[in-house]
Amino acid sequence: MAVAYPHFVVSETHTPVEQTKLMVPPAASPPCPAVTLTQDDLKKIAAYKAVEHVKSGMVVGLGTGSTAKHAVDRIAQLLQQGKLKDIVGIATSMKTYEQAVSLGIPLSDLDSHPTVDLAIDGADEVDPGLNLVKGRGGSLLREKMIESASKKFIVIVDESKLVNHIGGSKLAMPVEIIPFCWNHSLKRLVGLFADKGCLGELRKCSESGKIYVTDNGNYIIDLYFENDIGDLNEASDAILRLPGIVEHGMFIGLATSVIVAGVNGVTVKTKVGSELEVDSFSYNDLRNGF
Amino acid sequence: MAVAYPHFVVSETHTPVEQTKLMVPPAASPPCPAVTLTQDDLKKIAAYKAVEHVKSGMVVGLGTGSTAKHAVDRIAQLLQQGKLKDIVGIATSMKTYEQAVSLGIPLSDLDSHPTVDLAIDGADEVDPGLNLVKGRGGSLLREKMIESASKKFIVIVDESKLVNHIGGSKLAMPVEIIPFCWNHSLKRLVGLFADKGCLGELRKCSESGKIYVTDNGNYIIDLYFENDIGDLNEASDAILRLPGIVEHGMFIGLATSVIVAGVNGVTVKTKVGSELEVDSFSYNDLRNGF
Repeated sequence: MAVAYPHFVVSETHTPVEQTKLMVPPAASPPCPAVTLTQDDLKKIAAYKAVEHVKSGMVVGLGTGSTAKHAVDRIAQLLQQGKLKDIVGIATSMKTYEQAVSLGIPLSDLDSHPTVDLAIDGADEVDPGLNLVKGRGGSLLREKMIESASKKFIVIVDESKLVNHIGGSKLAMPVEIIPFCWNHSLKRLVGLFADKGCLGELRKCSESGKIYVTDNGNYIIDLYFENDIGDLNEASDAILRLPGIVEHGMFIGLATSVIVAGVNGVTVKTKVGSELEVDSFSYNDLRNGF
Repeated sequence: MAVAYPHFVVSETHTPVEQTKLMVPPAASPPCPAVTLTQDDLKKIAAYKAVEHVKSGMVVGLGTGSTAKHAVDRIAQLLQQGKLKDIVGIATSMKTYEQAVSLGIPLSDLDSHPTVDLAIDGADEVDPGLNLVKGRGGSLLREKMIESASKKFIVIVDESKLVNHIGGSKLAMPVEIIPFCWNHSLKRLVGLFADKGCLGELRKCSESGKIYVTDNGNYIIDLYFENDIGDLNEASDAILRLPGIVEHGMFIGLATSVIVAGVNGVTVKTKVGSELEVDSFSYNDLRNGF
């Protein structure tokens, strides 16, 4: 079945507003006009592709962030169109909860639905083994609770999120901590990774300058790594062993597949046992029903 | 210097009110009248012995609970008497903070004093390797933050707290969790130790029946083990890896010495490298200045 991918619907007519603008080369055959895709278009493409895996009757983990938002919108659209039925959503943040409520998606929680059929969420980094950094949006803890309880966890990203190793984007790896003596926790966290060129800072709200507070009433320390962190499981345990640390943003081994939307098409990486299966689709493929 | 241990001062004249009453046998030589020691007397004896290690100018971690309360009282008494000076206390709970403020002990926190010279605190269980269970009083997280930042950590207990292995008292091993989907976290915790005969329950306030909330705004799951937990470090990592878990009440390898007050005297167990040094004092020894 050919799926109406959002860029085919909107991108040729709307004015791109994102900073990152990408040019899709014209397909060889049949001839296809060049289409300017914004980063947001790519996010939407990945999101729509993931929502194809949502089936009626499923309990679905609803992610948080600019990419996941498109997936939630799409699920609501398919529910309204009657193409999906009996979906129960589990929101990974207050923000997503509010979005889902406003769109009429029925919601529940892990206490009532401890097993989630499928979770769909964005990520800030994806490494070649499908390990992630998440939480730059601040919802890492609830996301990890829900996504670790999911039979399938599909990650949706534009290609700018691919890294060679976790921390490789040089952007933040967030750690949620209790507010009590946060500066002490910051120092202990940075001290763990002193040999990795680690810096850390307390997250503040960009507008108000006030300390950012998570949905759980906690603070976030953003860690930045100059060098490769090394063994992720070792790093994870070292962080979690520090008292005062609630959770970190490394999602190790949780993603079952990653959908990457790029200028040349969509790549789907899926774990099959210990192997990684990679399928690539050009936008022509997708338009023709793959 | 002979130290005025509290039982020599008060126990022969006061009426024991604790449920647990212990009879100290008369010493062989010199003759000593039988003294009825309550469990609270033993707690006080251990606390006073620990406070001998507090020196003027120290940053001292102040524990929480019925045994630690005696240590805080004793430190305040010595400050008032001018026998200690320039002490900075770091309170492990709001309750201890209030006690210390009411007694005039100068207070600070880990952000201002990241290294603590000495922490003194009680414990709910002490195993032969000086591993502990703490947190039945609800302050495990702040206690662990402060005590893991201490050069020395002296644990003070009456002999009823000694166990062959962690969980051996069949009383609670507390785990602090975020409130979000607490029932899901409870099930995952119990599931980790299904082969250990583990049961768990959400802690409630005994008086009001409302959910108990920690100083950090979190909940506590009390775990009970029918069988030995086994490797404590493995158990610790397994608990901490669950998203939604903030901290657990096993204090593994943190205590540098444990002072145990029993009916026959006081035993001090101290870590010296990987060895354990054990000193025992009868109440006659203590009265005579040991």
